[in-house]
Amino acid sequence: MRRNTCKKLEKPTGVITRKLRVLGKFSQWIAILAIASLPSMSSAQQPDAEYLVRQKQFGEQWAKEDQQVRDKLAALEEQYGKKPNIVFILADDIGYTELGTYGGGKVRGFSTPNLDKMAAEGMKFLSFYSEPACTPTRTALLTGRHPVRVGLLGVLFPGTAGMGLVDEEVTVAELLSKAGYSTGMFGKWHLGGEAEHYPTNQGFDEAEWSEGNPPWWGFNPDVKRTDNAGYTNMGGLVWSPAPENFPYDTGGIMRGNKGEKPQMVAPFSLELYNTYDTDVADAVIDFIERKANDEQPFFAYYAGKGNHFWGANPDFMNQPAGTNNSAQMAEHDYNVGRVLEKLKELGIAENTLVVWMSDNGPMYAMHPHGGYSLLRGEKGDTWEGAVRVPGIVWWPETIEAGQDPIDIVQVTDMFTTAASIAGVKKEIPIDRITDGVDQSALLLLGEGKSRRDYIFHYNKDKLEAVRKDQMKFRTEPEKPHHNFYNIYHDPGERHPDEVRYGLWSGPGFKKMIEDHKKMIERFPHRVQNSYQREFDYPFDPEN
Amino acid sequence: MRRNTCKKLEKPTGVITRKLRVLGKFSQWIAILAIASLPSMSSAQQPDAEYLVRQKQFGEQWAKEDQQVRDKLAALEEQYGKKPNIVFILADDIGYTELGTYGGGKVRGFSTPNLDKMAAEGMKFLSFYSEPACTPTRTALLTGRHPVRVGLLGVLFPGTAGMGLVDEEVTVAELLSKAGYSTGMFGKWHLGGEAEHYPTNQGFDEAEWSEGNPPWWGFNPDVKRTDNAGYTNMGGLVWSPAPENFPYDTGGIMRGNKGEKPQMVAPFSLELYNTYDTDVADAVIDFIERKANDEQPFFAYYAGKGNHFWGANPDFMNQPAGTNNSAQMAEHDYNVGRVLEKLKELGIAENTLVVWMSDNGPMYAMHPHGGYSLLRGEKGDTWEGAVRVPGIVWWPETIEAGQDPIDIVQVTDMFTTAASIAGVKKEIPIDRITDGVDQSALLLLGEGKSRRDYIFHYNKDKLEAVRKDQMKFRTEPEKPHHNFYNIYHDPGERHPDEVRYGLWSGPGFKKMIEDHKKMIERFPHRVQNSYQREFDYPFDPEN
Repeated sequence: MRRNTCKKLEKPTGVITRKLRVLGKFSQWIAILAIASLPSMSSAQQPDAEYLVRQKQFGEQWAKEDQQVRDKLAALEEQYGKKPNIVFILADDIGYTELGTYGGGKVRGFSTPNLDKMAAEGMKFLSFYSEPACTPTRTALLTGRHPVRVGLLGVLFPGTAGMGLVDEEVTVAELLSKAGYSTGMFGKWHLGGEAEHYPTNQGFDEAEWSEGNPPWWGFNPDVKRTDNAGYTNMGGLVWSPAPENFPYDTGGIMRGNKGEKPQMVAPFSLELYNTYDTDVADAVIDFIERKANDEQPFFAYYAGKGNHFWGANPDFMNQPAGTNNSAQMAEHDYNVGRVLEKLKELGIAENTLVVWMSDNGPMYAMHPHGGYSLLRGEKGDTWEGAVRVPGIVWWPETIEAGQDPIDIVQVTDMFTTAASIAGVKKEIPIDRITDGVDQSALLLLGEGKSRRDYIFHYNKDKLEAVRKDQMKFRTEPEKPHHNFYNIYHDPGERHPDEVRYGLWSGPGFKKMIEDHKKMIERFPHRVQNSYQREFDYPFDPEN
Repeated sequence: MRRNTCKKLEKPTGVITRKLRVLGKFSQWIAILAIASLPSMSSAQQPDAEYLVRQKQFGEQWAKEDQQVRDKLAALEEQYGKKPNIVFILADDIGYTELGTYGGGKVRGFSTPNLDKMAAEGMKFLSFYSEPACTPTRTALLTGRHPVRVGLLGVLFPGTAGMGLVDEEVTVAELLSKAGYSTGMFGKWHLGGEAEHYPTNQGFDEAEWSEGNPPWWGFNPDVKRTDNAGYTNMGGLVWSPAPENFPYDTGGIMRGNKGEKPQMVAPFSLELYNTYDTDVADAVIDFIERKANDEQPFFAYYAGKGNHFWGANPDFMNQPAGTNNSAQMAEHDYNVGRVLEKLKELGIAENTLVVWMSDNGPMYAMHPHGGYSLLRGEKGDTWEGAVRVPGIVWWPETIEAGQDPIDIVQVTDMFTTAASIAGVKKEIPIDRITDGVDQSALLLLGEGKSRRDYIFHYNKDKLEAVRKDQMKFRTEPEKPHHNFYNIYHDPGERHPDEVRYGLWSGPGFKKMIEDHKKMIERFPHRVQNSYQREFDYPFDPEN
């Protein structure tokens, strides 16, 4: 819809993109033939090389655990007459140290009682990792694949076209649909604005979404920046509602059902964004209420309001910190509490897995109105502050309360774990690498059961860091060499240690990376070539 | 004792020091006359100017709270037939984010179950502040005064003479003795090595102590540094046991009673230090057992082993992080657990206040074998990492379990609070400033009751930073100007904000500092002039 109102619409790379897609499919078939001899065929998906190393080592133990997990799930299905409901809640720009239960809360001038309670009633991950930014993490969550493999390298900014979640990718919503789930998506999509990318064309039966953040952000030279500690309007940083003669439509909230053309139900505005998280939570709760007593289970994806600069809900502005961020934290905490309470009230909490996580760490461009993390770095890099995020799973009586495993978990794992719990892991395509690891044993059997002790930290298309056990091997900005950090010794990544670990861990990492790259050769990344509508509006941030 | 074995003993400034002390006393009498008109006369001690501002504002409310506190304490004394026992546990170099309950624990590769439990059963402070280093915090804890007022500016290093806790200072042990308490001190003293400074001459009925860290640390050129990830012996960094021809005695553990000459009961050694925290805890537990059923209450001061580089107890080396620090954390946690369990076992937990805190943040010189903090800075400065420390108070049934106030508390407050709870606040001398604030209302009545919303952060004799409410006004290293940090918005002190807060908070801080300085003119700092025995041993860290 937005494309139609764009004055300078062109698709210069469209033909090339299509050719690359065809080529991509062809090379995938070659790759499928090539892996016939790999141990991965024993798995329901095609994992990365490092997983195969671990599978060789722990395969027998895992098989035993899998049986325990299956027994537990079978007993639950017997009890409730259907598979468990699944709810994904994706928070936006909340740093690792923000929730009370992670050492934040009052320390940061607000409180998060509902998320703290969720953690106390469930399992709080101490080593939960996202991708470095918004679109990449959403890609990873829904496809179980590092975004570099999907061709979605960074944040999709306003005006981007030719890029998004394409038909060929298989989303968790598509998998769960195959398992008979009703699926609904609510909130910030950020996986492309063309019809192919719509959530209702990516496995969701129904959706109410915004393409990115409503309103799109950027400098609006018509709004003077008058930030004298007034935090209700960060004027000058938004361009919606669009000024007259704005080069293209700033869009609005879309709503639709699978197979239908969606409608714009509300144009974006600053006012709309103020209560956006609450509005999204209302839609989620409405969906849950409608589906609670159905014969089939449901999958709800709640993508909340960003902890960004603007959009503080006036009802939550009474936090001691007095920032937009503190109001957003309080509002989102309240809404998560409402969802969990609703599940309890409907009597379905014990048959519902809720996963809550942040999409990445904070950004500081408009500090203190954005998020925060005591860890180094910020959204858009691969330091811990960008990618180590709070993450909680909750499933009363099935996930034992009060656990806080240090086990490494990555956002892609939520894809595979949801597929596993719904019994459709075998539907995950094997013609591509899926990075997600099945963590159902960790969730259902407890700490120490993570099947992952490694992460490949990509920033866009660059492999910037590799984690293995306690160690992180990484590139150093503006330095010619790599470095090692022991993340237990130095979670703040301030004391690189080449001497102590260089000798033994350097070659180990080198081998890991070589094997990882060999797998990419077999299963090449999808290539998407976006193009940007030209921005012809006067742009002068000093104005 | 150590002085007698020193080859180059001289006391060049001794006469001047004595003269300054006499002068100091004289000026104090003038000051007492001068303050007759100050509102401070309504208080039992002479507070700093900023406290008087708050007293004017909240005095009536405080008086009501004080009555509630007195009623509670009277009821307890009625019930138990004596005043409450008090235990101070001072941990060493444990950073703010180290305990599990503060976001550390497993995240740092060890666990602290007993301290986490203590916090859950008691009150965990989120804004507990120490002085920047070891000797200064010990001074503040025992005298209720910022160390700059006592003339103890920094860490007392080996060989220091002419400096320590002098007769004229009144310690919490002396105050509690007046209230009829049995008093015992165990562990690292670090407040001077001359007879005048001994704990047994500073109010403790009995003590078993080391002058500083056993063994004294420094480079020992006879021990090669061979740190290839072996962490049991950080060779090259210690000089005890002393090499042959070492210029002076490296000392040992002292034991004695009030009024008697103490004896050295064990010479320092690396082996001794390995189990030092456990040995100190044994002595504390022995003291508690002996005093539990006495008619009078007891005061025990447990000054634990440092989270330094050397001295890992082999029994606790099984932590995932594999560092000396992780073994020391596990050992200290175990010992705190033993003390609390002993109080429960003896049936006296409900009549015992236990205060646990760290003396300052970590130092990174031998990372990863020392402590850690995610906050900025390290021991010896006034960034949050140096002075914001974990602190817990525990008193079953009297301090409500599970509280975690954000209220600002400073180590000096423990002096005044202990005096208040023992009913001897009026014994605090009024001829000098006492910085400690009575926090018994916060402990007994709950969050929001701190009587302090400010701190003067001294580093040695330099006022480097001032805290008021959420804001910290501070000097910037290598910059000509001051800066402001909002500690709620930016606990990591990475985003100074001159624009937003400069206008309103600059003048406020200026006034606070002016009034603070005026009070110093009235009540001058004690001056102590130390001298250092010359170090003639070959010193070459590169060797």
